[in-house]
Amino acid sequence: MQMSTFADVLSVGATIAFSAAAVLAVRKDREIDLFGVTVLGIITAVGGGTIRDVIAGVPVFWMEDPSYVWIALVAAVVAFYARKPLEQGYVQDLMLYVDAAGAAMFGIQATGKIHELGLGGDVGAILLGVTTAIGGGLIRDTLAGRPNLLLLPELYAVPVMLGCSAYVAVLHLDPTQHLLGANLCILGTFLIRAAAIRWHISMPAVTRL
Amino acid sequence: MQMSTFADVLSVGATIAFSAAAVLAVRKDREIDLFGVTVLGIITAVGGGTIRDVIAGVPVFWMEDPSYVWIALVAAVVAFYARKPLEQGYVQDLMLYVDAAGAAMFGIQATGKIHELGLGGDVGAILLGVTTAIGGGLIRDTLAGRPNLLLLPELYAVPVMLGCSAYVAVLHLDPTQHLLGANLCILGTFLIRAAAIRWHISMPAVTRL
Amino acid sequence: MQMSTFADVLSVGATIAFSAAAVLAVRKDREIDLFGVTVLGIITAVGGGTIRDVIAGVPVFWMEDPSYVWIALVAAVVAFYARKPLEQGYVQDLMLYVDAAGAAMFGIQATGKIHELGLGGDVGAILLGVTTAIGGGLIRDTLAGRPNLLLLPELYAVPVMLGCSAYVAVLHLDPTQHLLGANLCILGTFLIRAAAIRWHISMPAVTRL
Repeated sequence: MQMSTFADVLSVGATIAFSAAAVLAVRKDREIDLFGVTVLGIITAVGGGTIRDVIAGVPVFWMEDPSYVWIALVAAVVAFYARKPLEQGYVQDLMLYVDAAGAAMFGIQATGKIHELGLGGDVGAILLGVTTAIGGGLIRDTLAGRPNLLLLPELYAVPVMLGCSAYVAVLHLDPTQHLLGANLCILGTFLIRAAAIRWHISMPAVTRL
Repeated sequence: MQMSTFADVLSVGATIAFSAAAVLAVRKDREIDLFGVTVLGIITAVGGGTIRDVIAGVPVFWMEDPSYVWIALVAAVVAFYARKPLEQGYVQDLMLYVDAAGAAMFGIQATGKIHELGLGGDVGAILLGVTTAIGGGLIRDTLAGRPNLLLLPELYAVPVMLGCSAYVAVLHLDPTQHLLGANLCILGTFLIRAAAIRWHISMPAVTRL
Repeated sequence: MQMSTFADVLSVGATIAFSAAAVLAVRKDREIDLFGVTVLGIITAVGGGTIRDVIAGVPVFWMEDPSYVWIALVAAVVAFYARKPLEQGYVQDLMLYVDAAGAAMFGIQATGKIHELGLGGDVGAILLGVTTAIGGGLIRDTLAGRPNLLLLPELYAVPVMLGCSAYVAVLHLDPTQHLLGANLCILGTFLIRAAAIRWHISMPAVTRL
């Protein structure tokens, strides 16, 4: 699903942000060497999409286009050695927002890909959309011995789920508008997540009864 | 392998029990929101079969029939909000037995499926039978930061292994009786597990030398 | 990629060493029964190659040749009951070296397999080489609740990565020498790892800044 050059840029940006943010996050918690963080950075960036492709039974995306592995690898190494400047408040903030844009795009792109394959129904397309956005981070946190997203009240996966659901609705209501719909869903997902970052919004209390 | 309408009912029952029991178990240990437990419930219910299908190289079952995801999702949400009544002693007990029946059926069905594909030999069919029964729970416990079945002396996976092994023997001795054999193996597996639940039987000491 | 009878012997030896060493390692940390350690032994021995095959989209090797599962299973059971003699210093040391030879061979064999498939480019072939060598151990440590290789300064995965990279170079420079190249790369990888074992060498400080 070639959406646009904008999507390509975002996709590369998200890969960088996913990988670099993983390096910074893991380093904060524990001593870990360059090799370990680089592997964790690559896993964070390509892990979710790998699970999606394996479950969908299609070729794994980075086996067809290894440049994503290279991008993640370089981003991880740079983040490892340049973490002093990267740990500046405003760089960290910027990375949070790029990460949010990336998660939104990865999720909605995946939902579109699965829907196009005609697999898994609506619920499968949404589930794999969310998996693509958060799967790499789950593997990273598991391997790094950190609590993962599912255990934290952070408003991260739910906006992705809402965006993927909205995109499925678009694909049912007017498939001809899938490009516009995808961009709007990515934007909406990003805005909810950005608001959560900006104003420290957690999951609503009713979901934690 | 359409075994019978009884198997369908059990399969749906097991999906509900796997998902709902996961929600209750995880909630007991830690604060976790609706989204997190729902994802863990779905993973518990469909995770084992997903690993089986991916390793066997066949289409993942819930990509072909997404109703299993829906069932797990609804069961998880209901279990989350209705956990007061569900935490009653006799409901918990009932769920343990349905879970045991489900694990027995998932395991033996999987062994039959792999044997039919002619893959993995006997040991592969048994291994994937056990994986189907306990794989989802292993992923759930890993993501939830809980000790898993393999580390506990609970008599859970071993009855499944015995049942799957017995079913492989049936398939070699008299393949025409595979339906009767499957039902007897499921019953035997269930009875061992049920006895372990009822009389708190652990793995024998010789296995813990 | 049938390399030689020597490779077959090494492959069987590595499967035994991976499985038996897993049993000894896990048992040292915690009480765990025969079933649990056997499953962990099998996962350690075949897990990495399973991930490789699933990502490459080829049939999983032990579904085609289940003897690897049998070898790992028997090795785990023997290691469980014979751990008194196996915990002797010189037996432990021997197993460390066989494990090192096995990791070297598994890694470089995998890189060759992926390169032959023409998938993933050079970086993918190296990444899956390393994954094959350490993937089973990562799953084992995760399921056993132990810190994994990525979090430790042990010089284990990096020699494998160097060996796989050198082998990719051989395959580009002179593919006709792939057999000689593979054997030399396995030897080189083994020697670095053996030196690390013998003289307790960790990852260099520059990688832990």
